[in-house]
Amino acid sequence: MSLECLSSAKSFDGWHKQYSHPSTSTHCNMRFAIYLPPQTATGEKVPVLYWLSGLTCTDENFMQKAGAFAEAARLGIAIVAPDTSPRGEGVADDPEGRYDFGLGAGFYLNATQAPYNEHYQMYDYIVHELPKLVEENFPVTSTRAISGHSMGGHGALMIALKNPERYTSVSAFSPIANPINCPWGQKAFTGYLGADQSLWREYDSSLLLADCKPEDRRPALVDQGDADSFLTEQLKPEALTAAAKKSDFPLTLRMQSGYDHSYFFISSFIDDHLRFHHQYLASS
Amino acid sequence: MSLECLSSAKSFDGWHKQYSHPSTSTHCNMRFAIYLPPQTATGEKVPVLYWLSGLTCTDENFMQKAGAFAEAARLGIAIVAPDTSPRGEGVADDPEGRYDFGLGAGFYLNATQAPYNEHYQMYDYIVHELPKLVEENFPVTSTRAISGHSMGGHGALMIALKNPERYTSVSAFSPIANPINCPWGQKAFTGYLGADQSLWREYDSSLLLADCKPEDRRPALVDQGDADSFLTEQLKPEALTAAAKKSDFPLTLRMQSGYDHSYFFISSFIDDHLRFHHQYLASS
Repeated sequence: MSLECLSSAKSFDGWHKQYSHPSTSTHCNMRFAIYLPPQTATGEKVPVLYWLSGLTCTDENFMQKAGAFAEAARLGIAIVAPDTSPRGEGVADDPEGRYDFGLGAGFYLNATQAPYNEHYQMYDYIVHELPKLVEENFPVTSTRAISGHSMGGHGALMIALKNPERYTSVSAFSPIANPINCPWGQKAFTGYLGADQSLWREYDSSLLLADCKPEDRRPALVDQGDADSFLTEQLKPEALTAAAKKSDFPLTLRMQSGYDHSYFFISSFIDDHLRFHHQYLASS
Repeated sequence: MSLECLSSAKSFDGWHKQYSHPSTSTHCNMRFAIYLPPQTATGEKVPVLYWLSGLTCTDENFMQKAGAFAEAARLGIAIVAPDTSPRGEGVADDPEGRYDFGLGAGFYLNATQAPYNEHYQMYDYIVHELPKLVEENFPVTSTRAISGHSMGGHGALMIALKNPERYTSVSAFSPIANPINCPWGQKAFTGYLGADQSLWREYDSSLLLADCKPEDRRPALVDQGDADSFLTEQLKPEALTAAAKKSDFPLTLRMQSGYDHSYFFISSFIDDHLRFHHQYLASS
């Protein structure tokens, strides 16, 4: 596996690094970023928080804007931020070039529809290929948590619910909570998965959560700003709340007064999420 | 004075806002950002830290990447981040379109050379017009500190040294410490100020610091990464150290091992700078 280091910068006594590698899942080169806390400098292996970003983002948005490194350094947690879609020559984009489908909008699923099925295999990449690569090449353990924002909040919840054995805990900011019932999700699922809605249901966090078995429950924290302009039409956190009630799932959903959809919101509460995950990462 | 609000987002219980206004100094519309800590919501007036950014930046870089709001909110300090040059139709740029002169590269001085003298009056804007505007329109006191990065580190040091009565304290990250002796500074000073080097000397922090009178000394903190790729050719912190020795100036210059020129460096130490300034802001 060839892993090319693209950048390296010291931060809070640890290191932020970017890498590129050929992916066997997405059949193109993928870029990701990793924050290695200072504990790793002395050979200690640390657990990893995977962060899935939202529409239009790359590996850079969270790493540059979330202000997460101080607390990650203190707690001894590595953070891995993958890209939000395959990219490069030959990777199909939205036919209309819109921001909400195609490049920067992979929705963390495995596409079944041509031409997207050739490269848009983000679910396999995030769940299997990337953790294997990270665990083989960096001083980290296989203890993982997962979080994300908006489309990445959908990704984090959906992936944790489908793979409870792989994550200690899950959190999200402003997730697309019920994608089969909102315009962003319906456009993406139609394009990537086709018209058969039974396939869509496998990637919908609210449906997955409503059917979650007791043994598959994991601690889950969701923060949502009540001044988020996407709240009513796209995000629908009330679907998560109803689902959690149905399956008696331990969901903490906090409506944060006055906050919007931006990184100014995420940065305000990211330390809470790191400390939340640390409780479970540290004890497993 | 018409002040147009361009954006507003809650962060750490305070507010980040962007404004545009017609400037009497630069004869164009100027944009700036302000972070108002939560204390201001109850009518309390707080002191202000002015942040001057580096080459290519706008009001956004520091506000999005520095991770400064948590500590500013805790300490009760407002932060104002102006743009780094005039902009808009009719504002002259570098003839070759390079990043180190013209747009995004105003160097915080008053240009004397045509065509730059029409709009490039950033010194007057930062020292006089912007503080007046801020103090008339926001819940802040006239107690000020100043800081900045790279070109903005030059700006912060130079402005504080020329106006000691206006600032309680000054700090900088990776400042262009001796602009008359480095390529960035020589290009900018030639373009904005012409060939007469006596004018250049009025804007050189190391020369100003070497001649600083005892009554004009202010507490000063500088952080510089020793892995900064601009260190030797452009930044020259050793000139500041020598000047401080000459005038017995209370300069703390910290060489930070392994850190580069990026916001990953700034974010690692910005809380130190906020606490440094708070000591003096709170007691004046």
